[in-house]
Amino acid sequence: MSIRIGILGYGNLGRGVECAVKHNPDMELKAVFTRRNPEDVKILTDTAKVYHVDEAVKMKDELDVLIICGGSATDLPVQTPKYAEYFNVVDSFDTHARIPEHFAAVDEAAKKGNHVAMISVGWDPGMFSLNRLYANAILPDGKDYTFWGKGVSQGHSDAVRRIEGVIDARQYTIPVEAALDAVRSGENPELTTREKHTREVFVVAEEGADKAKIETEIKTMPNYFDEYDTTVHFISEEEMKKNHTGLPHGGFVIRTGKTGWEDEHDHVIEYSLKLDSNPEFTSSVIAAYARAAYRLSKEGQTGCKTVFDVAPVYLSAQTPEELRAHML
Amino acid sequence: MSIRIGILGYGNLGRGVECAVKHNPDMELKAVFTRRNPEDVKILTDTAKVYHVDEAVKMKDELDVLIICGGSATDLPVQTPKYAEYFNVVDSFDTHARIPEHFAAVDEAAKKGNHVAMISVGWDPGMFSLNRLYANAILPDGKDYTFWGKGVSQGHSDAVRRIEGVIDARQYTIPVEAALDAVRSGENPELTTREKHTREVFVVAEEGADKAKIETEIKTMPNYFDEYDTTVHFISEEEMKKNHTGLPHGGFVIRTGKTGWEDEHDHVIEYSLKLDSNPEFTSSVIAAYARAAYRLSKEGQTGCKTVFDVAPVYLSAQTPEELRAHML
Repeated sequence: MSIRIGILGYGNLGRGVECAVKHNPDMELKAVFTRRNPEDVKILTDTAKVYHVDEAVKMKDELDVLIICGGSATDLPVQTPKYAEYFNVVDSFDTHARIPEHFAAVDEAAKKGNHVAMISVGWDPGMFSLNRLYANAILPDGKDYTFWGKGVSQGHSDAVRRIEGVIDARQYTIPVEAALDAVRSGENPELTTREKHTREVFVVAEEGADKAKIETEIKTMPNYFDEYDTTVHFISEEEMKKNHTGLPHGGFVIRTGKTGWEDEHDHVIEYSLKLDSNPEFTSSVIAAYARAAYRLSKEGQTGCKTVFDVAPVYLSAQTPEELRAHML
Repeated sequence: MSIRIGILGYGNLGRGVECAVKHNPDMELKAVFTRRNPEDVKILTDTAKVYHVDEAVKMKDELDVLIICGGSATDLPVQTPKYAEYFNVVDSFDTHARIPEHFAAVDEAAKKGNHVAMISVGWDPGMFSLNRLYANAILPDGKDYTFWGKGVSQGHSDAVRRIEGVIDARQYTIPVEAALDAVRSGENPELTTREKHTREVFVVAEEGADKAKIETEIKTMPNYFDEYDTTVHFISEEEMKKNHTGLPHGGFVIRTGKTGWEDEHDHVIEYSLKLDSNPEFTSSVIAAYARAAYRLSKEGQTGCKTVFDVAPVYLSAQTPEELRAHML
């Protein structure tokens, strides 16, 4: 029998989960819940239905896992604890600093409802976190580096869009190749924010807008741009549509460390992602952890879990015997 | 209280484990067991003692984990089942094709003795296997590639040493950069053995040996070299000692895959290792899994486990709370 999946929230991430479910033959999308009028939401899966979010709890016995695709700022802190009481859930909560409080709230709700709730699933937090943990456990004496990009930062793009005279904007975060090379060489460089990443912004400005002023406002924007070397390009709406509609992303997690009686040997562990679609890759990680949540729940486990708590075997559609025979 | 570690077999790997224990403050090396005369084995750790291997079982209550550092061909198939009855054990069994039978034998013994036995721990099998599993679970529609090197293959070096007229030899396996680039580009190339790796051999020949004959014997050796482009260099004993005593290794695990409703987006997941010392890195992975074996055993788990069966949280000396706050 398939794992019956529900999606709550049908934006980029929700659509990504829908696609990921299609790629996993042991899963079946049953329902999409939306805050909009369900009749206005067209989904891709013939066999699934769209419901208003207020209908979700009523369907608690018809879904094995509910994937919550809200935003981390205001949606997930409310939604994940709420629904963890009624469903096994997975979210992609990505406000790193607030993970402990989110964990506590979700853990309480999930235990109350006897469900498994996976939080902060994706690639960072998610696969990058896992690689930090594995590499730290293997090389206790070492140094961690995380680089992001080349990829679109939606937060930075939004910040530029709020500047007067800007119609549209897309911001790319780009890791500095020389910094990556220095890290890989085992030099253990101390890198400033400016040395690690550059930012590139493509802006569609209103006709007659003061481009020099816009550029200065971008480059000096506190927290977002002031600590980076930023390049600004003014382009047409046509060019924006043609070349900048995708949501590529990626990055690098590198740990360098020493072994040997006198620390005489150097090692470099590197994990990298190059993603055409950030939301679809995040969704693909979520789908694998939805399988894990389902299986852990079947075993009688309850409470909040992160990627750190899940043995890899739970993620794969293959049996443990197949995995040992073919993938170990 | 520290995790009390024993090492069985004191070769390159055993010495590596000794160094790894030194790098993990929550572990303490208590004993090294050897088939040699214990008085002839000098170890680095002041506080540990060397015993004959026949004394090992008597010390079953004085060690939390016994790390078995024998060879995969003949030692481990006997040793790991034998000692899993008396100890929590970790081995680095690396004959991929025989893992299922090794697992079965070790599982039976470990369950009989109520111990946890971790097998096939290291980097391949080990970290590479983990990365294959994670990447396959995330991108079910994709293609796997594993490249090894640049690094010393001890099996191939030994094979060359058996050729008449050869005093010493060192063989390096080298991944082909063009093949790596083709894989990373998402082209999903079908690569032959010859296209993926080249082999480079450094040989110290006897005086007056027929070098042309040695070179031909190497290049045409079935299974070891005949399917590869091999370069042979004749060097002096001094040069061998100066430049080729290390045991560097490494490699790349890459999975490329597609997402999206119509498979319209490509993704590349890459994990790579660049290791100054193959045995010390392998030992460092083993130390982390020794911690996991100890903790799983404390929880009452028994039987044979692989890296697939262990949740990452068990590997780290940090608490789950610390990991969520700082590494997720």
